[in-house]
Amino acid sequence: MITKQRIVTLSPLQRGMHLITSEVEDAIEGTITVGTAHLFLQHTSASLCLSENIDPTVRSDTETFLNDLIPETYPRFRHTYEGKDDMPAHLKSLLIGTSLTIPVTDGRLNLGTWQGVYLYEHRDHASSRSLIITLQGA
Amino acid sequence: MITKQRIVTLSPLQRGMHLITSEVEDAIEGTITVGTAHLFLQHTSASLCLSENIDPTVRSDTETFLNDLIPETYPRFRHTYEGKDDMPAHLKSLLIGTSLTIPVTDGRLNLGTWQGVYLYEHRDHASSRSLIITLQGA
Amino acid sequence: MITKQRIVTLSPLQRGMHLITSEVEDAIEGTITVGTAHLFLQHTSASLCLSENIDPTVRSDTETFLNDLIPETYPRFRHTYEGKDDMPAHLKSLLIGTSLTIPVTDGRLNLGTWQGVYLYEHRDHASSRSLIITLQGA
Repeated sequence: MITKQRIVTLSPLQRGMHLITSEVEDAIEGTITVGTAHLFLQHTSASLCLSENIDPTVRSDTETFLNDLIPETYPRFRHTYEGKDDMPAHLKSLLIGTSLTIPVTDGRLNLGTWQGVYLYEHRDHASSRSLIITLQGA
Repeated sequence: MITKQRIVTLSPLQRGMHLITSEVEDAIEGTITVGTAHLFLQHTSASLCLSENIDPTVRSDTETFLNDLIPETYPRFRHTYEGKDDMPAHLKSLLIGTSLTIPVTDGRLNLGTWQGVYLYEHRDHASSRSLIITLQGA
Repeated sequence: MITKQRIVTLSPLQRGMHLITSEVEDAIEGTITVGTAHLFLQHTSASLCLSENIDPTVRSDTETFLNDLIPETYPRFRHTYEGKDDMPAHLKSLLIGTSLTIPVTDGRLNLGTWQGVYLYEHRDHASSRSLIITLQGA
């Protein structure tokens, strides 16, 4: 068994869900055949998630629902000096998570037919995001 | 250290939480003594989770609360052509997650006394579900 | 590659978020240089999470929001005999999660600048909490 680690820097992205499956596949290339790919986002106002990869209304409905659930106008938030989108971003990041572990089989992510890997950006004006990928297996 | 991978196909289950601890224990048998078991569901409308394994009202209260939080009648959902239970299922899957990593000690899942591993089915009429188990350790 | 497992017992903590980054760093000491640290809480009424580690209002806003989202007075809960804080604790634990995997680089947790590791206690009068740390890498 081996451990390999890669750092991927994602250019600034707009608020919403962005497919990054191929960036992760590229990082696996030439490392392991079977094992796990662990993805870790070094931030607290964006998320990593798996989502349905065909119909874009799944992503827009997700954004609609989460914005209604955690409104930027929530009257009891005190952490507001970094912008009204900041505290909702921390809460979405907490609930969705910033890390994923995905099985690798035959040298590729073993995703289901309808699964895609997404960087879910919660800020209106984000900087680049740093992703650490750790590959472990044989 | 070794890596072993198993695919478990779970027969179609009713909406709700279903204990699968023993199915996972069976997959570990004869592989590793100490390490991790990574469980990955290849779907976006069901979840994997840990929950209290004694009182069934914990599971029914969970279902009640989540159905109230993400109602099937949510007026702003646009992804509705696969049934009114579909978009709520994607959101529950996003919030609860579809993957678990559990420590293995002495050849068994090292769960707390009150923890059980559950497949949480969010669809009314689900097909079988595919679970990939990756065991890594010594 | 090696696998090492440690058990850390956390003394009873007050309801809320408690920084445990250094307890986890101590468990890594002298084990691996590169790989992953897997943290697993053997309980269903507390969580493990990453959160912003500077401004305490992020943590208090998180507690405020989650208490509003999952009120102790929720009229449809039936699992109430262990106290009104019990079922909300199970739901927070389900939504936030009880396990984290964090990359290890140069023998240390490779966290982002603003990330801290937190034990999030959801009960009013908790007992000690048991955390299993599995280190895998080279």
